[in-house]
Amino acid sequence: MVTVQQLMERLKEGISPLEETVDTAKFGDPSQEVEKVAVTFMPTYHVVKKAIDIGANLLICHEGAFYSHHDSEIKSSAIFKEKEKLIKDSGIVICRLHDYIHRYQPDGIMQGMISALGWSSFVKENFSSYSIFEIPEQTLLQVVQSIKRQLHLKSIRYVGNLSTNISKVGICVGYRGSGTITIPIFTEEDADLVIYGEGPEWETPEFIRDAMAMKRNKAAIILGHLESEEPGMAYLSDYISKIYPCLPVEFLPTENCIKTL
Amino acid sequence: MVTVQQLMERLKEGISPLEETVDTAKFGDPSQEVEKVAVTFMPTYHVVKKAIDIGANLLICHEGAFYSHHDSEIKSSAIFKEKEKLIKDSGIVICRLHDYIHRYQPDGIMQGMISALGWSSFVKENFSSYSIFEIPEQTLLQVVQSIKRQLHLKSIRYVGNLSTNISKVGICVGYRGSGTITIPIFTEEDADLVIYGEGPEWETPEFIRDAMAMKRNKAAIILGHLESEEPGMAYLSDYISKIYPCLPVEFLPTENCIKTL
Repeated sequence: MVTVQQLMERLKEGISPLEETVDTAKFGDPSQEVEKVAVTFMPTYHVVKKAIDIGANLLICHEGAFYSHHDSEIKSSAIFKEKEKLIKDSGIVICRLHDYIHRYQPDGIMQGMISALGWSSFVKENFSSYSIFEIPEQTLLQVVQSIKRQLHLKSIRYVGNLSTNISKVGICVGYRGSGTITIPIFTEEDADLVIYGEGPEWETPEFIRDAMAMKRNKAAIILGHLESEEPGMAYLSDYISKIYPCLPVEFLPTENCIKTL
Repeated sequence: MVTVQQLMERLKEGISPLEETVDTAKFGDPSQEVEKVAVTFMPTYHVVKKAIDIGANLLICHEGAFYSHHDSEIKSSAIFKEKEKLIKDSGIVICRLHDYIHRYQPDGIMQGMISALGWSSFVKENFSSYSIFEIPEQTLLQVVQSIKRQLHLKSIRYVGNLSTNISKVGICVGYRGSGTITIPIFTEEDADLVIYGEGPEWETPEFIRDAMAMKRNKAAIILGHLESEEPGMAYLSDYISKIYPCLPVEFLPTENCIKTL
């Protein structure tokens, strides 16, 4: 027997409390006992409906339900209202776990990625916003193919020469693909490749384009925000099952809704 | 006879001077007479080299040469130094035209996009950060195909149902694809489709995913930052040729360096 509040506190254990955080209960009564937990990266309308349909009364998500980090937009729109009604009518509790899981040691979202890639034996060092890996030397093409296979992705966006040899790799999950984070991984850590979720298009990619023009082979793999963080939430789902072995826990995956034609 | 400084002043004419702006001369002596102008969206290493090779002594670019909006990163890295050396050794003047061209009425970058799309007769209203169009009703698939053709793009990223009917469209160039900008275009302007350059992945796309789940058909086309702004710089290049008919002006295009596999 555990309440939503107790379960969420347990997931934040050992981390210095954050004064400002998005990791709060967004809807529902957190004093209720947890019957079933659903875990997801992105609480889309379909995911929320699925969580309700499978009888979960707690949905833990990494990102917010309303299209902005601080849920501040467009609360008057019909789309907001319909989603809010679905949630409120069901009584489901929706809690975000974003800031705290990124502060696990190592970062819980990164742990999920490392596990999904099967790269745990290649970890060289974990930093707060990225991890460094020494992988068996292979071409960028081989890395791309192996990641597509491991993460079950139909396509991957990348920058670089596919025949470049890669051995030192940095990974930055989520929105950590800005030049401020990635460029020092190339210039100070001397990584051959940085794999990131999302970042401004004319920062990291243009740095690599110029590096290539100077015959210094560097490369990036741009996984997508969702693709880079969803394995971390699957990892969290497994972790909750481990610490609450009697509690039903279900992970609800989502596909990226951005398509290419 | 015109100096770099005079030419750049002319391009800013009629716009209230901005106290803070990235639109400055980054390298070279702006008091020199302009012999040949090169215009580009992105001053990559290859583009700078090309500008020097064709004898331009002024390169006007929209974005910066050093992978961040304020050129503040990694000035000590070998890649920065090699690019800086290329520029300094040549004596070429590099000037950014970003903030001012976006303040043209209508936005100069948007004018280039409208002209590249052939949509000038469809303009309903121009706002400071987006324009609204009423196009002949067609499916999202038809819009995607027509844009690929008009902008010479090999592929396009989109969110939505390809059979959705589209007639009201918003366009936001550059990094204006955040939910804060695009969602009101859907909810207040009632647009069927927003075409944007770049924006956070779980804002606009997830809003559309939820709208679709509620059978409210909305769609987005994500052109890419470069693809959405390069036509505006081509437009600027033509404009400079018009106001300085005796001056040689060359537009230097770049392809997006992000590939898909």
